[in-house]
Amino acid sequence: MKKFIDKISPFIVMDILAKARTMPDAVHMEVGEPDLAPFEKVTEAYVKAIKDGKSHYTPARGLTELRETIAHYYQKKYGVSVSPDRVIVTPGTSGAFMVVFALLADPGKRLLLSDPSYPCYRNFAYFLGAEPLFQKISRDTHYEILPDAVKSMQDIGAMVISSPANPVGNVYRESTMKDLIRLSEEKGFRFVSDEIYHGLVYDEQEHTALEFSDSVIVVNSFSKYFCMPGYRLGWMILPEELVRKAEIIIQNIFIAANTPAQYAALEAFDDAYLQNVRDTFRKRRDFLYGELKNLFTIDAAPDGAFYIWADVSRYSDNSMEFCKELLEQKAVAVTPGIDFGSNQTEHYVRFAYTQDIATLKAGVERLKEFLKEG
Amino acid sequence: MKKFIDKISPFIVMDILAKARTMPDAVHMEVGEPDLAPFEKVTEAYVKAIKDGKSHYTPARGLTELRETIAHYYQKKYGVSVSPDRVIVTPGTSGAFMVVFALLADPGKRLLLSDPSYPCYRNFAYFLGAEPLFQKISRDTHYEILPDAVKSMQDIGAMVISSPANPVGNVYRESTMKDLIRLSEEKGFRFVSDEIYHGLVYDEQEHTALEFSDSVIVVNSFSKYFCMPGYRLGWMILPEELVRKAEIIIQNIFIAANTPAQYAALEAFDDAYLQNVRDTFRKRRDFLYGELKNLFTIDAAPDGAFYIWADVSRYSDNSMEFCKELLEQKAVAVTPGIDFGSNQTEHYVRFAYTQDIATLKAGVERLKEFLKEG
Repeated sequence: MKKFIDKISPFIVMDILAKARTMPDAVHMEVGEPDLAPFEKVTEAYVKAIKDGKSHYTPARGLTELRETIAHYYQKKYGVSVSPDRVIVTPGTSGAFMVVFALLADPGKRLLLSDPSYPCYRNFAYFLGAEPLFQKISRDTHYEILPDAVKSMQDIGAMVISSPANPVGNVYRESTMKDLIRLSEEKGFRFVSDEIYHGLVYDEQEHTALEFSDSVIVVNSFSKYFCMPGYRLGWMILPEELVRKAEIIIQNIFIAANTPAQYAALEAFDDAYLQNVRDTFRKRRDFLYGELKNLFTIDAAPDGAFYIWADVSRYSDNSMEFCKELLEQKAVAVTPGIDFGSNQTEHYVRFAYTQDIATLKAGVERLKEFLKEG
Repeated sequence: MKKFIDKISPFIVMDILAKARTMPDAVHMEVGEPDLAPFEKVTEAYVKAIKDGKSHYTPARGLTELRETIAHYYQKKYGVSVSPDRVIVTPGTSGAFMVVFALLADPGKRLLLSDPSYPCYRNFAYFLGAEPLFQKISRDTHYEILPDAVKSMQDIGAMVISSPANPVGNVYRESTMKDLIRLSEEKGFRFVSDEIYHGLVYDEQEHTALEFSDSVIVVNSFSKYFCMPGYRLGWMILPEELVRKAEIIIQNIFIAANTPAQYAALEAFDDAYLQNVRDTFRKRRDFLYGELKNLFTIDAAPDGAFYIWADVSRYSDNSMEFCKELLEQKAVAVTPGIDFGSNQTEHYVRFAYTQDIATLKAGVERLKEFLKEG
């Protein structure tokens, strides 16, 4: 396992966050968690569960009621019928990915990821001894892994996409997603769809991979759209034949997710609350994108999540240095692209709009000063 | 990773629990979690944290105040000075073991475990591609891995003991622990001490491995003695040189433990509450041991945890069948020894005293009927 330790890089954004937290006047445009409070009925249900003595383990797959509630949400939101038996509650998507990668990692098979992508994917792969295979994505590919690129690949065991994507903020086109899923079935690899930023899609209706096939694995969470990151709760939807295996893994590696938080989550699917979350982030997106596109090249449409992927190469050819100086000189925290891969990532910075517009404005003002002085 | 899936066995007790839960009149002597409620100030602090909006991620190593509180507990309880920098808060001991095994698993090195032992140890090893090496323990070895047995072993990377032990309920002698730790330092392997059942020791004062060395790794939890299993919170204490590596792993594999539960745990170290927990389990131990020793051979002193390891071979040479029949015929759930290894485990059953004495009495009465009818 020394190999693993050597391969993983620190999650740089977490270190930047730690440093920025020591700066009292910092503007946080690095944070990958929403600032909004959870729905009040969620916190009320959480409190009630604690007072009602819900302090024991739940079954490994999670509370039955919560699995049913999640299944119902798929029917209502996407028109997709999912049996609650295929829904498994997890401690965040972290817990889900640990199980999914353990299910799928297969010596001799590779895990197809995009570059850039969420760094934990590759680190989970290293953790479990699987070999990632990186496909470069860029403006030229619509920031998507394109089916044509996958067709000729050998020894793929699984692929993971996130849509809306971290760090790029784009949303996969329906046709790309459909074609990739069909290809996964033809070639016999698993299609894993990270849908943690679903709901935070501003200009269209997003599609769950479950609309196109029951062979896919879907991972989602209460941490972003539902604004419950610290409650550490997520879920996954598995093909039937993987459910029992997943359950056995969970019994061994984390027993179950936090119990009272599972009761809280029963109240999370409130239309009005969620509409307000989406509207709030849309306004922030509109503001920040409006400003940043005048300062940087932005070659990915910021259609979802709460990130903007900005090419800063007209100012610097080392975005890590750019981020460090911006933090030190102006107390504005942003995330260097290199956290997310090695494909041109030294030219990019990820801006998060997880603060209110007044704060974002202050950040942009400081950023403009920084660019002027630089 | 198919190798992993093939190697791990379902955690049978969880399946028995699931089945027993469907039987309305079942007596649960299989459950490895305390039935007692958490300390009321814990639940109050949990509620307050939720109402105060503590819904965001904590730092990966956990809340600073909680790490300090835990460090202080070691000073007060054991007279051991531990820097809060070495304390890391985790989602249960499950989270701690995932990190510890990732830190220690090293191709070519083996992980020394006792047989019987807590099944998750070996499954974590399989999960991370490490090879377990089982040392048989029995009455003849005081149910301890003895230093003499370890002296000649080759290629040991780490060893794990639990004391008080699951499933056996014995407590390692101070001299054995000291000698094993000295040996680990001489031979250059890590000594990992699972102290999750500390506090639940009835006839003596238990010792943390930290009393004997700073090179050891200690894992503990709020799930047993502190009666907060569903809050999914534990901790580990690492040698300084492993802290940063552990932090990087945590950033990637689980981000942090549940936030409001960490605030709750600040109130967990209450002397009077904990004394009452210990007294409650001592009385149950006294009752159940008093009964079971007349029915079975009990060759391990039930000094700690909340388990009694009973040799049922005068009734059956297949404890799995014994457990199944006992559940089906009398609705008494107990755990077959084979969950915990292969060393004579078909002769043993684990009884848990995690129910009140009236319930244990009912269970014993049914057990006596079962044995008479059998």
